[in-house]
This record gives sequence, C-alpha cells and structure tokens, in this order.
Amino acid sequence: MRNTVCSGLAALLLLGSFTFVSPTQDPEVPYPEGYRMWTHIKTGLIGPANPGFRFNGGYHHIYANATAMQGYNTGYFPKGSVLVFDVLDAKEQNGNTTEAGRNHVDVMVRDSVKYASTGGWGYEEFKGDSHTERLLTTAVKGQCFNCHAQQSDHVFSEFRK
Amino acid sequence: MRNTVCSGLAALLLLGSFTFVSPTQDPEVPYPEGYRMWTHIKTGLIGPANPGFRFNGGYHHIYANATAMQGYNTGYFPKGSVLVFDVLDAKEQNGNTTEAGRNHVDVMVRDSVKYASTGGWGYEEFKGDSHTERLLTTAVKGQCFNCHAQQSDHVFSEFRK
Repeated sequence: MRNTVCSGLAALLLLGSFTFVSPTQDPEVPYPEGYRMWTHIKTGLIGPANPGFRFNGGYHHIYANATAMQGYNTGYFPKGSVLVFDVLDAKEQNGNTTEAGRNHVDVMVRDSVKYASTGGWGYEEFKGDSHTERLLTTAVKGQCFNCHAQQSDHVFSEFRK
Repeated sequence: MRNTVCSGLAALLLLGSFTFVSPTQDPEVPYPEGYRMWTHIKTGLIGPANPGFRFNGGYHHIYANATAMQGYNTGYFPKGSVLVFDVLDAKEQNGNTTEAGRNHVDVMVRDSVKYASTGGWGYEEFKGDSHTERLLTTAVKGQCFNCHAQQSDHVFSEFRK
C-alpha cells in the first residue's frame, strides 16, 4: 500500500512536471542554421556615442527566412518565422568602415505554443560564431518580450526594398 | 544584276553588322530584378574622409544570385553569375548610422561571349531606384574592366560567413 501511494505520488509529480511548465522550461530556440543565405532585411551601425553600443555596438544585419518574409509582406508572421539579428564588430580606417568578427547572433522564432510565455516568439542569443553557447537568461528573455511586445506582431524592423 | 549586287552588298553590310561588334555595341546589362532576395555577401560604409566617398559614399551591400554563389564557393563564376553593389545614403544620429535612400545600383553579369570586350563581365550602373536610367559610358565600363581584371576572376569581394 505504501509503495502504491509512493508510486502514485511519483506519477503525479511526473505528470505535474509536464503539465505546469514554467517559463524557464520553454523549449530551446534552435541555432538558425543557414541564415546567411536568407533574405537580408536591413543594416545599421551603432557607434560608441550611442547607448546601445555596450550590447550591440558595430554592424547589425537582420535576416529573415522565407516564412518570415510573409510576415514582412502581410504584417503577420506565421509559425516557423525566424529572424536573425547578426552583430559584427566594425573597423574604421581612413573613413572606410568594414566588418570584423562576429560578436553575437540574436534569434527570434515564432511559435505561439512553444513560446507562449514570451508572447509566441522564442528569444535566444548565441555568442560569437558558436552554435551552442547561449547567452540569454530567462529574465533577459522576458525583457526581450516586454520590449518587442510593443511593436506590431512583436517585430521592430521593416524590409528595406 | 544591279539589284543582285545591291542585295549582296546589303546582305554583306547586314552580316558585317553582326560579325564586327565594337565594344560600344555590347549587349546591355539587364537590371537585376529581384536582387534584394539574393544572398547578402558583405557590407561596408564609406564616409567623407575616404577618397571613394564622391562616387560610393554611404552604405554598400553586395548581393549575389545563386549562380554567382558557385563562384564564391569555387573561385570560378559561371555564365549567368550576377553581382550587385547596392549603394545607399547613410544618416548618422547619436552614434546610430541608418540606411537612407538608394544612390545607385552597380551590376556585373558574367557572359564571356556577350561581354568579351570587358573581359567576360558586363558592367552597368542604374541611378537611384530606376530600372532603366543607365549611368556608365563605354569609357567608364572600360575602367571597371581594367580595375576588376586585376582580381581573381575579376571579383573583389569574398563571402562573409
């Protein structure tokens, strides 16, 4: 009898672990393999005089997969949309500013079920050229969500034609 | 008889016009329709302190079609390769440099027969967002060729991964 109770409790605990998913247990956002072949949305350059330099200094290029391109065209980003914010160091010499090493790769993935706790978009940041070294804590993902949620369908950028 | 001679002369003249093509009669390089969906190769920013500012000041993005991507991967650009050098004005505010209007679109097209007089690459420049307003004289196309010919397969850029 005691064993049965214990087994039942264990089963309940196991069940609970699948039923009550906290934001910390959202599925991981996969590395956006092949994104350099995706569509280039736009580019910016953030210099030391800008408050954003600390985290996103240098060049940033935004890339979108084919599904996300539907979002730029219609205003609604379907499930499977992936956006990449690719941040590279910048080198200036004689007025010519060129791209240098990769600082980090930010990723947004649209899935309203998997990433319900952050508004239907999953957020991640990969360090440098790493495909596995993840930089975002749950708290920072919440900050991504809070800021993006103020934009139409949570996307800041527009496709530069 | 007279008519026959005249017809023969006309035929020779017609034939001649197809046989002896001068560089000025090279086929026009078509506008690269849809290039914004092609692969983004790399980006640079040229400021007023650089001698290149006069002609190519602001952002430049290089795009390649799928055929040209074979060239970046193998070192040989097959027939049909198209490269675009997309030049946009840049606006700086508080250390944040953003893209502005399009200044011009430079195009290179690979075809060793059509563009034999400029080393197997045809050159053109389109003004602003125009698909028809062409800016290169034959003399300037020759300058493009002379400079590019010093590079491997006449291409300066490398694909930034």
